[in-house]
Amino acid sequence: MQLGMIGIGRMGGDMVRRLLQRGHECVIHARKPEAMAELIAEGATGSGSLTELVERLAPPRAVWLMIPAAAVDGVIAELAPLLAPGDMLIDGGNSHYHDDLRRAGELGGRGIRYLDVGTSGGVWGRERGYCLMIGGEMDAVRRLDPIFAALAPGKEAAAPTPGRAGTGTAEQGYLHCGPSGAGHFVKMVHNGIEYGLMAAYAEGFNLLRHANDGDSARVADAETAPLRHPEHFRYDFKLDEIAELWRRGSVIGSWLLDLGARALTENPVLDGFAGRVADSGEGRWTIQAAVDAGVPTPVLSAALYERFASRDRDDFANRLLSALRRQFGGHQEPPAEGGTHAAQHPA
Amino acid sequence: MQLGMIGIGRMGGDMVRRLLQRGHECVIHARKPEAMAELIAEGATGSGSLTELVERLAPPRAVWLMIPAAAVDGVIAELAPLLAPGDMLIDGGNSHYHDDLRRAGELGGRGIRYLDVGTSGGVWGRERGYCLMIGGEMDAVRRLDPIFAALAPGKEAAAPTPGRAGTGTAEQGYLHCGPSGAGHFVKMVHNGIEYGLMAAYAEGFNLLRHANDGDSARVADAETAPLRHPEHFRYDFKLDEIAELWRRGSVIGSWLLDLGARALTENPVLDGFAGRVADSGEGRWTIQAAVDAGVPTPVLSAALYERFASRDRDDFANRLLSALRRQFGGHQEPPAEGGTHAAQHPA
Amino acid sequence: MQLGMIGIGRMGGDMVRRLLQRGHECVIHARKPEAMAELIAEGATGSGSLTELVERLAPPRAVWLMIPAAAVDGVIAELAPLLAPGDMLIDGGNSHYHDDLRRAGELGGRGIRYLDVGTSGGVWGRERGYCLMIGGEMDAVRRLDPIFAALAPGKEAAAPTPGRAGTGTAEQGYLHCGPSGAGHFVKMVHNGIEYGLMAAYAEGFNLLRHANDGDSARVADAETAPLRHPEHFRYDFKLDEIAELWRRGSVIGSWLLDLGARALTENPVLDGFAGRVADSGEGRWTIQAAVDAGVPTPVLSAALYERFASRDRDDFANRLLSALRRQFGGHQEPPAEGGTHAAQHPA
Amino acid sequence: MQLGMIGIGRMGGDMVRRLLQRGHECVIHARKPEAMAELIAEGATGSGSLTELVERLAPPRAVWLMIPAAAVDGVIAELAPLLAPGDMLIDGGNSHYHDDLRRAGELGGRGIRYLDVGTSGGVWGRERGYCLMIGGEMDAVRRLDPIFAALAPGKEAAAPTPGRAGTGTAEQGYLHCGPSGAGHFVKMVHNGIEYGLMAAYAEGFNLLRHANDGDSARVADAETAPLRHPEHFRYDFKLDEIAELWRRGSVIGSWLLDLGARALTENPVLDGFAGRVADSGEGRWTIQAAVDAGVPTPVLSAALYERFASRDRDDFANRLLSALRRQFGGHQEPPAEGGTHAAQHPA
Repeated sequence: MQLGMIGIGRMGGDMVRRLLQRGHECVIHARKPEAMAELIAEGATGSGSLTELVERLAPPRAVWLMIPAAAVDGVIAELAPLLAPGDMLIDGGNSHYHDDLRRAGELGGRGIRYLDVGTSGGVWGRERGYCLMIGGEMDAVRRLDPIFAALAPGKEAAAPTPGRAGTGTAEQGYLHCGPSGAGHFVKMVHNGIEYGLMAAYAEGFNLLRHANDGDSARVADAETAPLRHPEHFRYDFKLDEIAELWRRGSVIGSWLLDLGARALTENPVLDGFAGRVADSGEGRWTIQAAVDAGVPTPVLSAALYERFASRDRDDFANRLLSALRRQFGGHQEPPAEGGTHAAQHPA
Repeated sequence: MQLGMIGIGRMGGDMVRRLLQRGHECVIHARKPEAMAELIAEGATGSGSLTELVERLAPPRAVWLMIPAAAVDGVIAELAPLLAPGDMLIDGGNSHYHDDLRRAGELGGRGIRYLDVGTSGGVWGRERGYCLMIGGEMDAVRRLDPIFAALAPGKEAAAPTPGRAGTGTAEQGYLHCGPSGAGHFVKMVHNGIEYGLMAAYAEGFNLLRHANDGDSARVADAETAPLRHPEHFRYDFKLDEIAELWRRGSVIGSWLLDLGARALTENPVLDGFAGRVADSGEGRWTIQAAVDAGVPTPVLSAALYERFASRDRDDFANRLLSALRRQFGGHQEPPAEGGTHAAQHPA
Repeated sequence: MQLGMIGIGRMGGDMVRRLLQRGHECVIHARKPEAMAELIAEGATGSGSLTELVERLAPPRAVWLMIPAAAVDGVIAELAPLLAPGDMLIDGGNSHYHDDLRRAGELGGRGIRYLDVGTSGGVWGRERGYCLMIGGEMDAVRRLDPIFAALAPGKEAAAPTPGRAGTGTAEQGYLHCGPSGAGHFVKMVHNGIEYGLMAAYAEGFNLLRHANDGDSARVADAETAPLRHPEHFRYDFKLDEIAELWRRGSVIGSWLLDLGARALTENPVLDGFAGRVADSGEGRWTIQAAVDAGVPTPVLSAALYERFASRDRDDFANRLLSALRRQFGGHQEPPAEGGTHAAQHPA
Repeated sequence: MQLGMIGIGRMGGDMVRRLLQRGHECVIHARKPEAMAELIAEGATGSGSLTELVERLAPPRAVWLMIPAAAVDGVIAELAPLLAPGDMLIDGGNSHYHDDLRRAGELGGRGIRYLDVGTSGGVWGRERGYCLMIGGEMDAVRRLDPIFAALAPGKEAAAPTPGRAGTGTAEQGYLHCGPSGAGHFVKMVHNGIEYGLMAAYAEGFNLLRHANDGDSARVADAETAPLRHPEHFRYDFKLDEIAELWRRGSVIGSWLLDLGARALTENPVLDGFAGRVADSGEGRWTIQAAVDAGVPTPVLSAALYERFASRDRDDFANRLLSALRRQFGGHQEPPAEGGTHAAQHPA
């Protein structure tokens, strides 16, 4: 099947490769034409403009956008007039599902089918396949089935779930989740869960790492509670060994744990990281949707807030706490405890 | 190798089976002698008393306790006088690691080696193997290596981690984590993480389930914020399909998700559950250890508190909130929203 | 000064009374004309329609809306055509500040000044005065100064803050916080903080209430962690006495604590409350704004989620947790613990 | 009445002054004799040793310890042999209530009455009076009534609570809360609540402070979610004005807010604070007691964890999150956002 792909960065480029390997025809477009050379050498057809891309596709066309969420509306504005009724436009990036609802309405008026496809898989997708969460109208989803099937991991990627007939596409790793917005809604919640899972591991390993704090010569500091029982914290755990251990037979085995074992094997003390953790939108939207719906998500929120705080967005709040403590008790702030920040920036 | 097993409930019994299948000799003891019949038929040696169990084992003996944490000290008090210097006593249950430190000291004075072995695997361990987190002295751990290797899942249970030599026992699924208490400390944190992971999934699926709240004829209620945009919540997600979908290629694949897919396949609406979630100790101890050590664990705590609240332990707090709202604003409590509780208990 | 008041419910009616008592002239309007009788008897001028209300006011008019947030846009649509350039429209309810930004733009195009005024004070405002958080253009705010000054508590309502000149309006209890939306933004955060404060007290008192749990004959239940040290929980605290105690000299004295002492004095066990806690919007918007801005608000979020959970919005999440526990460990749900819900609805 | 006071630091010294002013006789002792000079000049009787202190008191003696929690057991060990049956020993510091239970048992065996008295008031207590939460046996509490009454704020410190007879000591600001440990238990929860209240304000003001983030020239950064609507965050709030405003008529007025208004008046941008917030024990114990009792305290926990994180105790967790993001998505860490840390320590 023929697919147009706009945006051939890390994700888009690998998706094109996977499609080419499975016999599909890809017409690609990138802002910087030189970025296309490698994929053209691998069999893709390049195009110098959106007009050229559209011309090289036979109607009814299928054009997949794999570009930053902030750029999607601009590209659609330019692209939509070039498309014809019956064409399909797929946003495979991380758009907010509210935007999908709006776009599907606008494009539907012109007879263009808009699909929102949440895509998980990261840099591993080319090899493992991509998990695809699809929203939009049924007929368009059906027509694109060969593309979805090629991108998805396939049935063998996981053992069968007892009791399931196993004949649906979910078993292949792609699913038509519902009408417009449904794909990005499910992807949004997916990422919200991802933040929660990551934080659960991070907090647990952080506790293991501090299990030898009883050995530290804690500087006497009247303002901070000392360890009540230093003898309870005299364990020097090898975190890479423990991550590896938990990968087998334990209740908490997961792909994220597999990656954690890799990370800790490569770099057991995780130096070189500053501990500023980015967040890319879906985690935020998950919380906002949950609050809209009145659904409690304390774990997912806490995971998001840890990321905010890692980037010092809690700074003023903390200073106000110190100021209040000085007001009511005359308390001074404790000295830095010798963490990474302190080590990097000796005062 | 010969092992004595005290306690042949769900976990202990299956561990004996796995050991017998791998050629080890098991002498077993249970409070109710009739409980032993099945295992004896499968090759275990029964014993009618702790004395008999000890007599049937050749020194240096290895006796494994697989009993409720609350019963361990009582059995040790009875068993220790029967043991000889050089014998090994393993607590494979979920003891608090503070208790391990105490017991190791007391038993060490008599020349008895005490090992604490956190054991993960649940009802699946017999087939998948058990993930073993071991604390105690090195020589005893070494002597028990054949037992640990037989219980553990083995190397093939997970793909190799790139960069690891792969010659340690962690790759087999068991690990000597450190001195006394280290095994249960690591198991404690393991369970703390488990609570966090479970809660992340539960919150995410709960949000998906409420994604169609915009369709409900929400009873007008001046005291509760309405959905600002009902049109954003009109998705009827099939949760079993989505769980199945995420098992392939996504970042959030895990063994718990596999089980979630099973549970939702068997019972897509999860009726029959009241939503009272138990907690068995380690999750609590994780939080208490983290607080002792001054390590922030907001996600793990939130997960634990959700369980407390599921059992109505937040009841008085909620009533005080309602009372305060009545004081300052004359507000009345909103009517029940028609959730499960309400459905079960029509007012 | 002359003011039109639309909406004379609990808040609006008392505000009219406070204005009348301080010599201002109020023209009022209510959907149900009979609701106006009492205020007319106290000196207000009634009006049977919006047209009549507008006619009874001398330009430049000032019309204050004190109606549910959901009704504001409808009333503005009806009212705006009746107003003239230079008139002022004040929304004193709990609108979302995004709506203020939109309305100020729309009405500004017609020369109408729109002010957003967050109003705190509840049923106590008539006597204590109202804390007014004002957003909009400076000239309109200045013209309304007599009204704001009459509604606000006045300087004597709190002791002076050392170091402040004390000549601003903040010392009177009203403040022009900034351009359109600023008033409701500050009110939104005010309510977010309110939720956090209330929850802090509620959690603390709930812990005090459970300080005698060591006395309970806890039914043996293999699925739930028992109290490790029942002897640590044998206190029968008198919560009304403790609330009263903390009102004097302690760091946690507050107006909410004063109300808590009242509530616990009136009803020490808080029976009659079901523990379903409403939330009215601003707490939600606070979290959503914080997430938009990347500001961590774990305490304010936790407070909001407790309210959601109090209304069983966590129900499906809890049932999924129970289902997962059954999957991996064969665990059964624990029996109800005999809390209020259980007591009310014996199973 | 005669009272011995051991420890005349910030709190102990001011308590002696308040007692002297109200006609009581104080025999004092300090490690550094020169520290006593000032109080002796004000009317206290100095003592060069514990023995001398005891000799200068007439039996039945009352000795009050106002020393760091970590020093209490040592002083008791030295002091108890000097005391006689019927003497009373008061720990007015911040001991863990478990320690009270143990000490009361040990000292009770010698006929010495041990009282635990949680004391709130900080540097303001001399003037405002101290809020006293008392645990121990009734007869000893009664004998010390004149001391408690002199230290407490007195009835006029707060308006009467409607419906209360007003004849108890809670109205004076001191209360016999229950048997041994009850005083420190209530003080512990008091401080847990204090952390929650402080965090609620700190988070709210932090959000207000970031309300102008839409104006910042946010450096383009592919790894961090941008503000979706910068036009919603264009408010330059004056935080000192808002704190002052909320002190009158609002629902969130409190003594902590009064102090916040002072702090923001003195230093509106709170420079000079590094934002490392100490915690002194009771907040931790509150969480641990709540977890022991199975009482959910998400707000109080979140408040505590924010303090831990302010001291970089989340550092390793954050670095693991960054490492995981690099593993699955090839993501780089975002640059520092120019907060306080960055400003102080340019990299």
